Amino acid sequence: MKLVLSTDNKNKIKEIKDVLKDLDIEILGKSDVGCDFEVEENGDTLYDNALLKAQAIADKTDFYVLADDTGLFVNSLGGDPGVHSARYASEHNDKLNREKLLKNLSDSEDRSAYFKTELVLIDPDKNIIPIEGICEGNIIEEERGDNGFGYDSIFMPLGYDKTFAEMTLDEKNKISHRSRALQKLKIKLTKIK
Amino acid sequence: MKLVLSTDNKNKIKEIKDVLKDLDIEILGKSDVGCDFEVEENGDTLYDNALLKAQAIADKTDFYVLADDTGLFVNSLGGDPGVHSARYASEHNDKLNREKLLKNLSDSEDRSAYFKTELVLIDPDKNIIPIEGICEGNIIEEERGDNGFGYDSIFMPLGYDKTFAEMTLDEKNKISHRSRALQKLKIKLTKIK
Repeated sequence: MKLVLSTDNKNKIKEIKDVLKDLDIEILGKSDVGCDFEVEENGDTLYDNALLKAQAIADKTDFYVLADDTGLFVNSLGGDPGVHSARYASEHNDKLNREKLLKNLSDSEDRSAYFKTELVLIDPDKNIIPIEGICEGNIIEEERGDNGFGYDSIFMPLGYDKTFAEMTLDEKNKISHRSRALQKLKIKLTKIK
Repeated sequence: MKLVLSTDNKNKIKEIKDVLKDLDIEILGKSDVGCDFEVEENGDTLYDNALLKAQAIADKTDFYVLADDTGLFVNSLGGDPGVHSARYASEHNDKLNREKLLKNLSDSEDRSAYFKTELVLIDPDKNIIPIEGICEGNIIEEERGDNGFGYDSIFMPLGYDKTFAEMTLDEKNKISHRSRALQKLKIKLTKIK
């Protein structure tokens, strides 16, 4: 089986190779099947964005295709920043995004939130298989930790007294939304094979 | 503002009236707008099912419309029972559903799971507004507690040493997937008004 990712990011390709290493699956980047375009992520939901990205590749190949999108959903903000997490205050500026979130939460007693990764797998028959991973936690009041990226330094998963940014990658990977989504992907691909 | 629910279930109508009582919104059941049909919930996701139900009503009225669907997603089962939660072993038999889940999990070290409620709000211009609520926890090995329904007696939310079925309704409502989704709905409706 060949699986094409909707990215050429080497870290993402390596991560998925690691998760799926026990299965006989060849992982390809999108440029390996001649897809050099960028898809605009203008959907209303993570699912919409992942689907847009997956379908753009699936139009060009009949291998399995996988795309993803991730967001942080804060309950007392009605689910914001959600699908806009990476550009909440400013695109590609994690620090400004965190500061905006802390400011918007400054009056909230309820600081509960969750990260969600949405994967969309498209099979050779063009069936759409949505897969998600969740990690619930709370937004703390000040940044803690130097690892990770994005909102990791202000997100403390339930049951832990460390933020994602205070965890090693191995610790984070045991519980993270992204690793949970990838584990579910593995379960589904194992059944398919 | 008038909001039509995709149900005539009195408990659901009362619950939503309670959540939205501070807002000047009249809550109607579907039969109040002449919709007496049942919509088949045959979607692949909670969102699909909620959308099917909401759209069937929105085709008949230009008021706001709200529909919902809920499922339990177990990580080591690849997200099962998920959209099939209410009919995992047998439709309308919670006990058989719980037994099937415990059996399927008997060899799993990872018993993490989450409940999700997906709401779909359709506005008078037929815009679709998806809203979700999440509650993460673990599936315990034996049933505990008499309250609630469905999988409540085997689901222990993270950070608690009680199952949903051992909580009072007030306790459960502080953290439940459903109440979180409804609180987000309230935030969104407050902005609209």
